Amino acid sequence: MRFYNLNISHILMISPMYRELKQLIENEKLVQCFRFKSEEEVTDADLDWADAIATFNSQADFDYSKVKWVHSLGAGVDRFLHNKSWDEGVLLTRTICSFGQRIAQYTLSYILQDLQQHHLFAEDSNKKIWEPRTPILMKDKKAVIYGTGEIGQETARVLSLFGMDVYGVSRSGRQKDFFTKVFAINEHQSELKDVGYIINTLPLTTETEFLFDEHLFSCFTQAGFINVGRGASVDEEALLLAIDKGTLRFAVLDVFREEPLPSGHPFWDHPKIIITPHISAVTTPDEAVSCFIDTLFNIEQNKELLNQVDIKNGY
Amino acid sequence: MRFYNLNISHILMISPMYRELKQLIENEKLVQCFRFKSEEEVTDADLDWADAIATFNSQADFDYSKVKWVHSLGAGVDRFLHNKSWDEGVLLTRTICSFGQRIAQYTLSYILQDLQQHHLFAEDSNKKIWEPRTPILMKDKKAVIYGTGEIGQETARVLSLFGMDVYGVSRSGRQKDFFTKVFAINEHQSELKDVGYIINTLPLTTETEFLFDEHLFSCFTQAGFINVGRGASVDEEALLLAIDKGTLRFAVLDVFREEPLPSGHPFWDHPKIIITPHISAVTTPDEAVSCFIDTLFNIEQNKELLNQVDIKNGY
Repeated sequence: MRFYNLNISHILMISPMYRELKQLIENEKLVQCFRFKSEEEVTDADLDWADAIATFNSQADFDYSKVKWVHSLGAGVDRFLHNKSWDEGVLLTRTICSFGQRIAQYTLSYILQDLQQHHLFAEDSNKKIWEPRTPILMKDKKAVIYGTGEIGQETARVLSLFGMDVYGVSRSGRQKDFFTKVFAINEHQSELKDVGYIINTLPLTTETEFLFDEHLFSCFTQAGFINVGRGASVDEEALLLAIDKGTLRFAVLDVFREEPLPSGHPFWDHPKIIITPHISAVTTPDEAVSCFIDTLFNIEQNKELLNQVDIKNGY
Repeated sequence: MRFYNLNISHILMISPMYRELKQLIENEKLVQCFRFKSEEEVTDADLDWADAIATFNSQADFDYSKVKWVHSLGAGVDRFLHNKSWDEGVLLTRTICSFGQRIAQYTLSYILQDLQQHHLFAEDSNKKIWEPRTPILMKDKKAVIYGTGEIGQETARVLSLFGMDVYGVSRSGRQKDFFTKVFAINEHQSELKDVGYIINTLPLTTETEFLFDEHLFSCFTQAGFINVGRGASVDEEALLLAIDKGTLRFAVLDVFREEPLPSGHPFWDHPKIIITPHISAVTTPDEAVSCFIDTLFNIEQNKELLNQVDIKNGY
């Protein structure tokens, strides 16, 4: 990696949970100077003072080109890079930590509630109806995961523990552990036609924006769609159409083009759409600090950074 | 095992799904003679004709002492043994097959819907409320499983895959793989006080009837109770009381003292009780036949029977 001897001494942490972060960082007795602020409180003087910024990848358009290093306290970095220019002289890193574990458990929970037919039993129960139905075993369903990075691969690992056939889709199509087979994103995918679940873990980039469109949804016949990547990767009208047509059985959406999801949005009332408020990969203050400090130490000791963002790829 | 040279030649299969069983058995081209009947159709002549009976552990009180072998098409054999006498000269076997896998996935599905707060997000979503809450990871909760046999152990294996601490309770207290620690049923269990989940997989025996009573429930402080064993192991009033007091957070019940659950039963309307109609370990015709044939072959070849019931223990 090209960044060495960065000599980071002034670090600005911008986060809604800056008080918790301050407490945790102060416990570490680091030699660097820190400032902790909410987004609204940050001034130009703070930005001039800092040579590194750690931030929650927020809405604000700060000028990051003055610092040596920006660390994203979230996993996704689209707010820094997507449809924006980035000074490649500035190191960009992101939080990796427990996201794979969190997203795998989120995804598994919604797959199992489908296979175990929680909703049907709850409906029956409301009507005091005793009607045995046989739950479906994981091994009898297939899934496809878009994105075979840390998050996608951990999800594949967990699903395959139960004997589920898990396919992957990535830019390169490179084969990876825990996937039955990985396809390149533009390959013909007739094997995926009858998958039970489509799971999107892709970052938002120019290539993945609107990836899930009418054409792509029409390649499936009976899938549930679980989006834990980015909302802007989905053509929302195409999603609604695919559910109406029955090519998608349901959707579980944790991410949206606009967040919070606007109150008038048709997703809210849709009986076949489950909405969660971007919680599948929450960063806890503990984890955010732990990953930040690991990255800081690796930079100081000029070690390999596993969480450095490739600016060109956008993740 | 004491049963050899049973020379089984006339087998009576009694099941509501006898047509499916007949089809599957006929495909196997076995040398034995078979009769397939529903419970209502069985005559004394059928019982006299048979030297072995395979049955779904049903309500009927047939006299099984005339045959050499009875095979339960379900996992539990309480309907044959509990509060009844059994002629120990008659071999009793039961179906084991995929029950562990099925019950583990059922259990995991309800643990995950709790940790991932499906109900809270659904309530928020109904009101178009966007309120992030952090899901809880499996590794941050403990569980205790009553029963460390095939079903309990497979459930422990699956839960421990996610880093969950899983305790066991069994008659002997013998330590087993996948359990952090196994307690004898009458041991003092202060370590279990703060478990997140109590899972009952025990068979119904004289010792386990009413095991989950006011005293036992009062040993916990914040548990969800998941019953995939037998309904009669639970004192139903004590269960309702424990939920009212808050020592149990909720209950997921697949089995009941009386099944189907009577329409006037207070469990139906309870906001903290989830009811499923005895489906956590369904036997499919394929699996029933596969396990039956394995058992038949093992008997004929005088091999060890892993699914022989210990009449005295009742499972």
